[in-house]
Amino acid sequence: MTDGRDKNAPIGVFDSGIGGLTVAREIMRQMPDEDIVYFGDTARVPYGSKSKDTILRFSRQIVHFLRAKQVKAIVIACNTASAWALDPLEQEQDIPVLGVIKAGAFTAAQTTANGRIGVIATRGTIDSGVYEQVLRGLNPGFQIFGKACPLFVPLVEEGLTHDFITEEIARRYVKDLQYKGIDTLILGCTHYPLLRTLLRKVMGEKVALVNPAYETAIELKTLLVEKGLCHDPRSTGEGGALGTPSSYRFYVSDLAAQFQEFANSILPYDVAGTEQIDIEQYGVSH
Amino acid sequence: MTDGRDKNAPIGVFDSGIGGLTVAREIMRQMPDEDIVYFGDTARVPYGSKSKDTILRFSRQIVHFLRAKQVKAIVIACNTASAWALDPLEQEQDIPVLGVIKAGAFTAAQTTANGRIGVIATRGTIDSGVYEQVLRGLNPGFQIFGKACPLFVPLVEEGLTHDFITEEIARRYVKDLQYKGIDTLILGCTHYPLLRTLLRKVMGEKVALVNPAYETAIELKTLLVEKGLCHDPRSTGEGGALGTPSSYRFYVSDLAAQFQEFANSILPYDVAGTEQIDIEQYGVSH
Repeated sequence: MTDGRDKNAPIGVFDSGIGGLTVAREIMRQMPDEDIVYFGDTARVPYGSKSKDTILRFSRQIVHFLRAKQVKAIVIACNTASAWALDPLEQEQDIPVLGVIKAGAFTAAQTTANGRIGVIATRGTIDSGVYEQVLRGLNPGFQIFGKACPLFVPLVEEGLTHDFITEEIARRYVKDLQYKGIDTLILGCTHYPLLRTLLRKVMGEKVALVNPAYETAIELKTLLVEKGLCHDPRSTGEGGALGTPSSYRFYVSDLAAQFQEFANSILPYDVAGTEQIDIEQYGVSH
Repeated sequence: MTDGRDKNAPIGVFDSGIGGLTVAREIMRQMPDEDIVYFGDTARVPYGSKSKDTILRFSRQIVHFLRAKQVKAIVIACNTASAWALDPLEQEQDIPVLGVIKAGAFTAAQTTANGRIGVIATRGTIDSGVYEQVLRGLNPGFQIFGKACPLFVPLVEEGLTHDFITEEIARRYVKDLQYKGIDTLILGCTHYPLLRTLLRKVMGEKVALVNPAYETAIELKTLLVEKGLCHDPRSTGEGGALGTPSSYRFYVSDLAAQFQEFANSILPYDVAGTEQIDIEQYGVSH
């Protein structure tokens, strides 16, 4: 029943902190019957400026924690962790593990007309070269231009999503990408969709903005259908969307109250309780 | 010989990352005979936005590590860790433990003429109220005005220390402090001295800027003299400043190469090697 292959088991979603809630929100919207266990690593956030080995170690601890919660699938809702940890975790785990990068890359590949694609993300994601690798795997003719934007996350967390300062910084960050003539821009960090209006203004109407959160939820849904792992309200006597509400549980490694406040501000559901756990106690076994 | 009370044992200095190097640099300058073991918690940086319990747990792990290196005294070169962890660590340890806050507060108290003192720092340091508490302990008549400046650290780390964007953000941050008529401003985060020129311009010549790194090194020197713990070159056959060079060892929890590059850019000595360690393996025993 709860071996991780139960169709009524929850989906595990993790991120370095709050940004992954934009992915959880998309899963809630597209799959309202699914239960979710979310973990935000708020004691060790951010991931974007840390090394591959460290991010992989953190990710393995979190997967260990989520497996203890009997999840049936895991979504890495963090671009940096997807970049560094998805491949090893996919190999190590016997349940589906998805990252946000492939879904975003597929959409960008379908969207671009001139084959010139920009990626904005944290330093870690850009340095990993993972978007370039996935996109070139889809079409070796693509030209990929990456740009690290380390100030975007702190600016969003300061609430300056519509400020001229953020716009000025955005103009500096994307200037090179504009010179390169890109027609598609991947928002390669979970905070960046919150800057969409501003980025739309800076980039102009002709550049398509790709939000991997949206695409990842679609990929997850497709995968659950394929594997016969969709939540089945009938089997538990629930009434589907009109019956027992789905269960959303939130765990963090620090500052549960602050997390919950933010979660309530962006989720359409009220977050009843957020629990703080000591993630360092979870081993790296796999 | 190496029980932590040996006068020729090294001084332990720790910070959430690279910022504490401004404190280490002052110790090197003021006490050229002393050896130093520095630890930067680059895997879990920043501390400024995390909770008291988490910062205390991290700090205890680091103290455990430094004690294993046989240090004779410990300097917490991080304002947030000083705010949350200094008092418990002072009680738990049988060697001197210093933070950066008291030294900065003492100097501010001696500097102010009108008793109106401003403090700029991370969210954690401001929320702790520690500067206010220490300053009021020195003079209950002082009026203290704190302001969290979360964007300063990322702006410094992006190299924008002389940029009009940083100046605009600084003007917004300090506007309230200027209305309050402060005559003294404590730079309550180890990165902020790197913004001194810009802050001088924004604040004007009439407001004194207090850099706790400088004051902490003086306090440490006084304390080592009092306790007879100063390094004694004669006892090891060294020739003092003209003899065997002091030993500086650097440890981090992530990205050793990147840390070393930064260290070499701000220290007057060449950092020969930086070692990465797994700080989570150090228990919280005390």
